[in-house]
Amino acid sequence: MLEENENIQFQLTDELIEQVELLIENQNDKELHQLLDEFHHADIAEILDELNLEEAMYIIKLLDSETTAEILMELDEDNREKVLRNLSSKEIAEEVEELDTDDAADIIAELSEERQQEVISHIEDEEHKEEIRELLAYDEDTAGGLMAKELVKVYDTWTVAGCLRRIRGQAEEVTRVHSVYVVNKQEKLVGRLSLKDLIVAKNEQKIADIYISSVDYVNEHDEAEDVARVMQKYDLEAIPVVDDNHKLLGRITIDDIVDVMKEEAEKDYQLAAGITSDVEADDSIWELTKARLPWLLIGMFGGLGAASIINGFSDAMLRYPALMLFVPLIQATAGNVGVQSSAIVVQGLANNSIDGKILSRLFKEFLLGLVNGVAIAAIVLLISHFVFGTTYKESLTICIALIAVIIMAALIGTFIPIFLDKKGIDPAVATGPFITTSNDVFGILIYFLIAKLIIGF
Amino acid sequence: MLEENENIQFQLTDELIEQVELLIENQNDKELHQLLDEFHHADIAEILDELNLEEAMYIIKLLDSETTAEILMELDEDNREKVLRNLSSKEIAEEVEELDTDDAADIIAELSEERQQEVISHIEDEEHKEEIRELLAYDEDTAGGLMAKELVKVYDTWTVAGCLRRIRGQAEEVTRVHSVYVVNKQEKLVGRLSLKDLIVAKNEQKIADIYISSVDYVNEHDEAEDVARVMQKYDLEAIPVVDDNHKLLGRITIDDIVDVMKEEAEKDYQLAAGITSDVEADDSIWELTKARLPWLLIGMFGGLGAASIINGFSDAMLRYPALMLFVPLIQATAGNVGVQSSAIVVQGLANNSIDGKILSRLFKEFLLGLVNGVAIAAIVLLISHFVFGTTYKESLTICIALIAVIIMAALIGTFIPIFLDKKGIDPAVATGPFITTSNDVFGILIYFLIAKLIIGF
Repeated sequence: MLEENENIQFQLTDELIEQVELLIENQNDKELHQLLDEFHHADIAEILDELNLEEAMYIIKLLDSETTAEILMELDEDNREKVLRNLSSKEIAEEVEELDTDDAADIIAELSEERQQEVISHIEDEEHKEEIRELLAYDEDTAGGLMAKELVKVYDTWTVAGCLRRIRGQAEEVTRVHSVYVVNKQEKLVGRLSLKDLIVAKNEQKIADIYISSVDYVNEHDEAEDVARVMQKYDLEAIPVVDDNHKLLGRITIDDIVDVMKEEAEKDYQLAAGITSDVEADDSIWELTKARLPWLLIGMFGGLGAASIINGFSDAMLRYPALMLFVPLIQATAGNVGVQSSAIVVQGLANNSIDGKILSRLFKEFLLGLVNGVAIAAIVLLISHFVFGTTYKESLTICIALIAVIIMAALIGTFIPIFLDKKGIDPAVATGPFITTSNDVFGILIYFLIAKLIIGF
Repeated sequence: MLEENENIQFQLTDELIEQVELLIENQNDKELHQLLDEFHHADIAEILDELNLEEAMYIIKLLDSETTAEILMELDEDNREKVLRNLSSKEIAEEVEELDTDDAADIIAELSEERQQEVISHIEDEEHKEEIRELLAYDEDTAGGLMAKELVKVYDTWTVAGCLRRIRGQAEEVTRVHSVYVVNKQEKLVGRLSLKDLIVAKNEQKIADIYISSVDYVNEHDEAEDVARVMQKYDLEAIPVVDDNHKLLGRITIDDIVDVMKEEAEKDYQLAAGITSDVEADDSIWELTKARLPWLLIGMFGGLGAASIINGFSDAMLRYPALMLFVPLIQATAGNVGVQSSAIVVQGLANNSIDGKILSRLFKEFLLGLVNGVAIAAIVLLISHFVFGTTYKESLTICIALIAVIIMAALIGTFIPIFLDKKGIDPAVATGPFITTSNDVFGILIYFLIAKLIIGF
C-alpha cells in the first residue's frame, strides 16, 4: 500500500537522470533500488521516458513486477510499445497479473493479435484471465472498454455484519472502494451503499433495509464520452456498468474518466489547430509531418483556389490595383470569424448546450456578424480612404465586402459543425484550417463579386 | 442521501419544459414537487436554465433549501447571478448553510463585497461561518480556494475502535469520505488511512501502527493547475491541503479538479480560436461581441499592415501581376503552419513535457518546416507553371518564398509560446489569431522581399 508517495514536488532534473544512468552503468542495483523506491511509479515512468531502451529495460528487470506493471501503465505510449517488444509473452503475463483488469486489458490490447493470445495463455489466475478476455471484446471507446471487473458487491439479503465480513475479503483485491454495489439474487444491480453508510449502520440491519435504490449506472455499450459527461454532471467518483438485463458487470472510476476527458480536450485542440493525429512535441519529424502535412495541403489547395479567382478578375485588378491591397484583410477576417464561430458551436455541442434550432442560431450569428462587420468596416473605411487614398467606390466595395464576408464566415462557421454533428461526424474536425480554408476562398470570391457590382468592371 | 438519481438518460425536452411551465402557471405545487423530486439537482438546474427568471424563482422558493442550494451550484453562472440578486441576504445564508464550505464560499464570492458581509452575518452555524470566512480569503485559483474544510481526521494516538466510533460522528457531515487523514497532537498531517484499511484492521490496533505515512498533499498557496496535474498524475481522488507548517487545513476532491480541468481546456480552446473571455453559444450578442471583436480588430490591423506592404511593392505588382495571385496562398500557409506549431508547444508546456532546450526545439522546427515546405513548394511549382503559366523566375520566387515562410511560421509559432511561458504569461494566448496575424504580415513581407531578390525590381 505504499504506492502513493509524498513527492509532490518531484522534479525530473538532468542530475537525477545522470545519477540513474551512472548507477545503471555501474550495475549498482542496491543504490538504484534505494533511489527508485523513494519515488511514485508515475515518477519512475517519467525517468524511464528519458532513458534509452537498454537502460529502461535494465530498470524494468530490476524492480519487482508489482511496481513495473504500474510503471508500464504510466509510460509514454511509444516507449511502452518498445518495452513490451523487449519482454517475452510470459514476462508480460507476469506484469499483467499485477494489474487491475481494466489496465491489464489496455496493455494487452496494444499487442498484436497473435501476441495477445500468447500473453493471455500465460496468465495463471483463471478468473483474471477470463475477465481480461471479457474486457478485450469491448471497443475501447465504450463503457465496457473502460470498466474494471474489480468491485465490491453485496447481496440485498445480507446483514450489515455479514456484509462487513465479506467486504473484508473482497476489498483486498480492490484498490479503492468507492461504493458497495447491491445486487439481487439474479445479479441485477438494485442499489448502492457507501462504506460510510455501512460503518454508520447497525450490525444487525439488513442490506435490503438500508441500501440506496437510486443509483447511477451506464450500459456496457454507452460511449466513453457520454460516461464522462454523466460522471462529471453528477459529480460521481465511480459508476457501475450493467448489461441490457441490468446485470452488474463492472465499474468505471473517475481517474480513467479524467484521462478520457484530457485526451478528448487535447484531440479537439489539435484538430482546431489542424493536426490530424495525436502527436507530441517530442515525436519524430516524420510523425509530426504525417500529422501536419494533410491540413497544409488542404490549405494549399484553398490558396490555389484563391489564386484562380484572382486570376479570373486579373483585368479588373490591373485597372483598380487598390482593390488588391485589401485581399489579405478580407482573407484574414473571414478566417478569424469562421474559427471563432465554429469554436463556440463545437464547445456548445460538446456540452450538450446547443439544441436543434439551427435557423434561430444562424439568425443570431447573422446579427452578430452584422454588428462586428459594421464596427470593423467603419474603421477600415477611414483608414483605407485617408491612408491608402482609395476612391469612394473602392472604399464602399471594401466596407460592404467586409460586412458580407464576416456574415458569411459566421454562418459557415456555425452551420458546418452543426451539420457534421447531425451526420454523426465529430464536429471538432470542422474548426481550424478546414473552416479557414473554405472561408478564405469564399471570402475572396465575394469580395471580387461585390467589387464587380459596385465598380462595374 | 437520495441525492443521486438513476436518470442517466435524463433528456431536457421541450415537452418537459412546457410541462413545468404549465404547472408553475397553475401554481400546482403538489405535482411540481412530484415531478421535480424524481430528478437529480443537476437536472433540475438544467430545467431552470431554460425557464425565465420569474419561473425559476418560483421553483427555488418551492423546493427546500437543501435541494435548492445544490441546484444553485449547478446553474449557469449568469442565471445564478440573477437568482441570487432576487434572494435576500438571509435567504442566501440559508442556502449556503446547506452547502459544503467550498461550495458555500464559491457562491458567496460571486456577491458584492457588501452583500458578502450581510450574507455571512446571517449564517447561524458559527463554525461554518468561520470556515467560510477562512476560505474566502484565498485566491480562487489556488489550492486554498478549491479546498473544503469538511474532512475526516483522526489522531495517531487513537485505536481503530475509537477511530471508527469518532468517524461515525465526523462522517455524517462529510458527503464522501475518500481518505481518513491522520494528524499528530500539533494537528500536523502525518499520514492517511482508507476506510477500507480501517475496516480490515483489528479493533484494538493503534492508528500509529497502521497508518500510511506517505501521503500526497499540496500547500494552500499552490496553483489550481498544479493541484490538477498532481491529482491526475497520481490518480488521486482527494488530496489534503496543508499550510507552510504542515498543519492540515482541508481537502480537495477530484470533482472540483475535473471542473478546473474542463474550464482550463475550454479556455485554451477558446483562446486558440481567438475568443478572449468565457462565452457560450447562448450568451447575448453584446457579450459575444465583447469576446470576439478584440481579436478581429487585431486581425484587422494585421490585414491593414499587409495592405501597406503590398502598397509598398505596388509598382512591382503591376509589372508582375502573377505574383499577386499567390498572396492568399502564402498568407494561408503561414497562418496554418504557425497555428500548428504553437498548438503543439502550448500542449507540451501544459503537460510539462517540454524542457528548456529552446535552440534544439527551434532547430527541429526548422527541419520540419523544411520538409513540409519542400513538399508543398514542389506541388505549387507544377501547378503555378502549368496552370497559371508563371515564368521561371516567378515560379522560383513562389517556391522559395513558400519554403521560407513555412520555416519562419514554424519558428515563430514555436518561439512565442515558449517565450511567453518563460515570462510567466499563459502561452495559450499566443495561439490562434495572434500567431496567425503576425505570420500573415511577416509572410507577405518575406514573399515580396524574395521576389525583389530573384526577379530584381
